[in-house]
Amino acid sequence: MDPARHIHAVRVYYEDTDAAGVVYYANYLRFAERARSEMLHAMGFSASRMTAESGVAIVVRWCEVDYIAPARLDDTLEIHTRVLSVEGAKLNLEQIVRCGGRDLTRLRLRLVSVSREGRPVRLPADLHDALNTLVQSGETE
Amino acid sequence: MDPARHIHAVRVYYEDTDAAGVVYYANYLRFAERARSEMLHAMGFSASRMTAESGVAIVVRWCEVDYIAPARLDDTLEIHTRVLSVEGAKLNLEQIVRCGGRDLTRLRLRLVSVSREGRPVRLPADLHDALNTLVQSGETE
Amino acid sequence: MDPARHIHAVRVYYEDTDAAGVVYYANYLRFAERARSEMLHAMGFSASRMTAESGVAIVVRWCEVDYIAPARLDDTLEIHTRVLSVEGAKLNLEQIVRCGGRDLTRLRLRLVSVSREGRPVRLPADLHDALNTLVQSGETE
Amino acid sequence: MDPARHIHAVRVYYEDTDAAGVVYYANYLRFAERARSEMLHAMGFSASRMTAESGVAIVVRWCEVDYIAPARLDDTLEIHTRVLSVEGAKLNLEQIVRCGGRDLTRLRLRLVSVSREGRPVRLPADLHDALNTLVQSGETE
Repeated sequence: MDPARHIHAVRVYYEDTDAAGVVYYANYLRFAERARSEMLHAMGFSASRMTAESGVAIVVRWCEVDYIAPARLDDTLEIHTRVLSVEGAKLNLEQIVRCGGRDLTRLRLRLVSVSREGRPVRLPADLHDALNTLVQSGETE
Repeated sequence: MDPARHIHAVRVYYEDTDAAGVVYYANYLRFAERARSEMLHAMGFSASRMTAESGVAIVVRWCEVDYIAPARLDDTLEIHTRVLSVEGAKLNLEQIVRCGGRDLTRLRLRLVSVSREGRPVRLPADLHDALNTLVQSGETE
Repeated sequence: MDPARHIHAVRVYYEDTDAAGVVYYANYLRFAERARSEMLHAMGFSASRMTAESGVAIVVRWCEVDYIAPARLDDTLEIHTRVLSVEGAKLNLEQIVRCGGRDLTRLRLRLVSVSREGRPVRLPADLHDALNTLVQSGETE
Repeated sequence: MDPARHIHAVRVYYEDTDAAGVVYYANYLRFAERARSEMLHAMGFSASRMTAESGVAIVVRWCEVDYIAPARLDDTLEIHTRVLSVEGAKLNLEQIVRCGGRDLTRLRLRLVSVSREGRPVRLPADLHDALNTLVQSGETE
């Protein structure tokens, strides 16, 4: 078990699929965001509490998605999330959607923590430290 | 042309369909809300301005949906919206999703205007009057 | 623990909410469908296998939704699903979305099993029997 | 008017926004797909007819998204689509989501035409030629 990698499982429902019989391409970004939320919760944080307490939100500034193979109705997917780096307001992640031991979709994302006015602000210190611990445990693998 | 009925056209895209090859059942509620928004805009109102100016939002309290026949990818749908009644904070609507002269889905809805705290409040007077005119032009048909 | 009632938990993510800060009204139908899928899986069935093996799909013909109170970001919701009756091709369900011991949304639905051509056909016998057992265990409560 | 650029307008509805008050990040991919569908329709093609006639579907293999500024409820967005290159089964596009003369989101995508079995196949000749004309009219600007 890799401490630097968070795994979240989702089932593919009708709502996720399209008339081509596969998961609609935008919905992998929904799966990825669910996985990031669950990773935050597993670390003791949540977006709603962070916004209420410090007015800070973490938003996606950039993402890149490789669609390798399609997921289908009733598949159980695993979203593997790895924090690549964290620095100031910036966070780099890799997220891989897997099914049956195979990579279906690979995402790389740059996230930024922003104030209510949308300006970049440093990540809350406790979250920054918790994320940084993940990065370092990943590096020493 | 019936002044009491607003018509909004939407195209069915991949995002609207599911692996059964038809429009996913929840998405007719999205189409219906688009049509209600467009009706408001056509009358000179908008949800965002109403919320900013008076803190009032119009929310769905109840709806009933009859699914008669499915819509498919690339279909052009017409959503016919008719205001049945308006009184105080309450609004009753009928919305019918049609394709090629045929009813696919029929919705009846009860909406309520609420304050920021979620309490029912009277509809803004100008919107109430504009909606009431629609009701009456429908009755005298 | 009530054997006639299936409970499925979902977390509310950003994708489920809207600019009013609450879960978008159509998305309760997505939650309800996830819960029905999970109930099928828990009983040893799945939509994809049923379609592949017998060409039968279960579709929603009618639903009614009462919106009582809104769900918000990061809420954990429970969807309680109860089979009210099953007869031939028809299935009546009640589904209640709860949070913190409180009903947020109540749905009643009529579902029908249909052939690939969209015509009503009897539910597969094993599924019919399994559902009927649920109905009866509910009646004898 | 630039013949190499297709423009499609969409209004932002509640369904597109999230609890942060802005358009949810995955939904720009929905807008982009709507614009690609409308571009196909404007050229006399459609995904549903193409799949029915030749079994060919055009799927996204890779995309990259820059999120520059957020869109909000009731905004009217323009999606500008430009075909960068077309060769064999491959298609490169740039899509820019604009509002009030400002770029909000920029996407680059690689699409591939695939057979029913998911294998890359050449684009239908008439579509290839029509797309190629767009590329060349863009180059000679």
